[in-house]
Amino acid sequence: MISKSMYELGAQPSPIRKLFNYGQIQAKKLGPDHVFDFTLGSPSVPMPSKVAQCWEKLNREIDPVALHTYTVSAGRPEARQAIVDDLNERYHTHYGPGDLYLSCGAAASLCAVFKALTLDHQSKILAMAPFFPEYRNFVESKGGKFDYVPAAADFRVNLEALKEAIDASTQGVIINSPNNPGGKIYTREELKTLASLLEEKSRNFGHPIYLISDEPYRELAYDGLEVPWIPSIYKNSIICYSWSKSFSIPGERIGYTLVPPEAEDAKELYLAISGAARTMGYVCAPALAQRVIESCIKERPDLQPYEENRQLLYGSLSEMGYNCVHPDGAFYLFVKAPNGDGSAFSEMAMEKNVLIVPGVGFGCPDYVRISYCVPNDRIRRALPLFRDLLAQACGR
Amino acid sequence: MISKSMYELGAQPSPIRKLFNYGQIQAKKLGPDHVFDFTLGSPSVPMPSKVAQCWEKLNREIDPVALHTYTVSAGRPEARQAIVDDLNERYHTHYGPGDLYLSCGAAASLCAVFKALTLDHQSKILAMAPFFPEYRNFVESKGGKFDYVPAAADFRVNLEALKEAIDASTQGVIINSPNNPGGKIYTREELKTLASLLEEKSRNFGHPIYLISDEPYRELAYDGLEVPWIPSIYKNSIICYSWSKSFSIPGERIGYTLVPPEAEDAKELYLAISGAARTMGYVCAPALAQRVIESCIKERPDLQPYEENRQLLYGSLSEMGYNCVHPDGAFYLFVKAPNGDGSAFSEMAMEKNVLIVPGVGFGCPDYVRISYCVPNDRIRRALPLFRDLLAQACGR
Repeated sequence: MISKSMYELGAQPSPIRKLFNYGQIQAKKLGPDHVFDFTLGSPSVPMPSKVAQCWEKLNREIDPVALHTYTVSAGRPEARQAIVDDLNERYHTHYGPGDLYLSCGAAASLCAVFKALTLDHQSKILAMAPFFPEYRNFVESKGGKFDYVPAAADFRVNLEALKEAIDASTQGVIINSPNNPGGKIYTREELKTLASLLEEKSRNFGHPIYLISDEPYRELAYDGLEVPWIPSIYKNSIICYSWSKSFSIPGERIGYTLVPPEAEDAKELYLAISGAARTMGYVCAPALAQRVIESCIKERPDLQPYEENRQLLYGSLSEMGYNCVHPDGAFYLFVKAPNGDGSAFSEMAMEKNVLIVPGVGFGCPDYVRISYCVPNDRIRRALPLFRDLLAQACGR
Repeated sequence: MISKSMYELGAQPSPIRKLFNYGQIQAKKLGPDHVFDFTLGSPSVPMPSKVAQCWEKLNREIDPVALHTYTVSAGRPEARQAIVDDLNERYHTHYGPGDLYLSCGAAASLCAVFKALTLDHQSKILAMAPFFPEYRNFVESKGGKFDYVPAAADFRVNLEALKEAIDASTQGVIINSPNNPGGKIYTREELKTLASLLEEKSRNFGHPIYLISDEPYRELAYDGLEVPWIPSIYKNSIICYSWSKSFSIPGERIGYTLVPPEAEDAKELYLAISGAARTMGYVCAPALAQRVIESCIKERPDLQPYEENRQLLYGSLSEMGYNCVHPDGAFYLFVKAPNGDGSAFSEMAMEKNVLIVPGVGFGCPDYVRISYCVPNDRIRRALPLFRDLLAQACGR
């Protein structure tokens, strides 16, 4: 008398977690230096010092009952004002605090958006591979349909496939740029072509197709690349943001949903997202974290350590002969399995205690993901093993 | 193209919030001393000093990246161990960390439990009036049915009505003791009769009927009254706890779900609850709050201020002639509207800037709820207004 689908989701933790747990056990057995864990997307770079100090300072300076009390469901108006002020300054927009809903992280934002956009079992959310595997659970558990189109050869927007896939039931298309696991940042130009397609399809089907932008990696862009502000390119956009990666606080569950007022039915959509958050028991985003964001909104992450890791890993693996997607942002390297099978290659690597995630869950079964939000030394010491693995996989 | 039910839930905030917001506006207009807000259940009593200090101390002593990183979905094993150790000591139980799942508060726990117990549109969760109004949204949004039986005359377990209401589709009965809004604590004796009924019905229908115990007020009991440990009375119990009220940290969203190993299908149920939390985007409970709980598990709230308020409010209103439910715990007084209509009486009070919540949402339309987690002085100064209201309502 227990929900079978929920049981199955609980009984089968994500393959990422499974690998990570295996690594923890091996590390105890062999010593941590003999296990090369590249599984999780846990930020390894110290947060901006002002952010670190702020947690302590707020607790010293503000009456604890006031500090830790309920906020309104959408979050402290002062925090929302600070966030939209920052967005308005950076992106020349005109958002108000009523356009933004503070959430327990981007995952919570996405769940509320999917719930708000699900009308019946036909309601569809589309993604493009490679995509974050949990999207599927998030959508299906709200009663809707999840589908995806394959990755384009260059891991850019797969316009042709999307054109085919969007139908009358498509309520939203989700993008994630900078991308986990591909590391790609969509350019303004390709986003414009995507916007044109969505506009055309919305006209054809007589209803808006929302572009849901999952943006936990927005501040993690290298080489000075632009991460375009999506709503300035396509008005029917919804932003799901998180400070997990940019402030190195993934355990604190703080992010937001933004519904730009230009979006069609913006007010109704915002209210439906509020209602959806309410039905999932999200009373408010954690109060102390809201204050930290409010005080530190101008802070940006130190990308230098990730940048060094990126160059070392991408450079070395490419030189060895691996076929790697060049990462523009985030902290993952997406690599073609040299034996053509990401799952088999991940298992082969596991035998050498090199833990890398098979690409199948991201919609790319012939790839593996290597997280480089790790100490630089771990990458350096793993390089000979990656060389061995390549030889082994190619039967050399 | 937006979910109508979600829109409606977002567009109609709870009547409690509506009254509270009205109070905020009036306070700005008239000055805070002229508005008597008894709406919210926000703890007003300072948290135990060790808890207050702990937030700061952890930030001073632990490396920020480690402190704020992801925890496993169920929460830090150390935190779960500390919590079950405390439960085992207090209730002579034998729980392990694998029986407990840290959540973003009791609301999040309840949502995951309802989702795990919903098989189809017939799956029913039953409550007894008076009950927390959000139960309905929580259950219905998971695809199940919510129903309730009326309050017993003495606000105790309404055994006769439950006996009638439980049917083959009933998956769970939810109780909340100490109760919001009634303040009642179910005695061991009446819980035993409830357990017998549930055992009988489970046998009749051939499946367990879980007793879901929503316990944010467990530590708020007066006069040394026992708050019985539910699973020691009925094995198929599920505990949904929160530190919101006991530690005065409702904004921080930290609580737990406990599935005792004695419960039927305990392992499957625990996993289904984990799966349900996963589908709602609850990645983990806030990490810093987990550490605070771990360090402060033995701390208990200072009930003295609530106790003084309780005596003053219950004593004075009863003496005036109001018919009040005697509160054993929590921090609410549930009062029969002297004109027989809680909503009309609440509006009448609003005109005097006395803000009290109509009972209709709790399943008791002839009652109002007065929260006494407020400064004692606010109660004292409102007493003459309550006297006037009684006269007015009785047409004197």
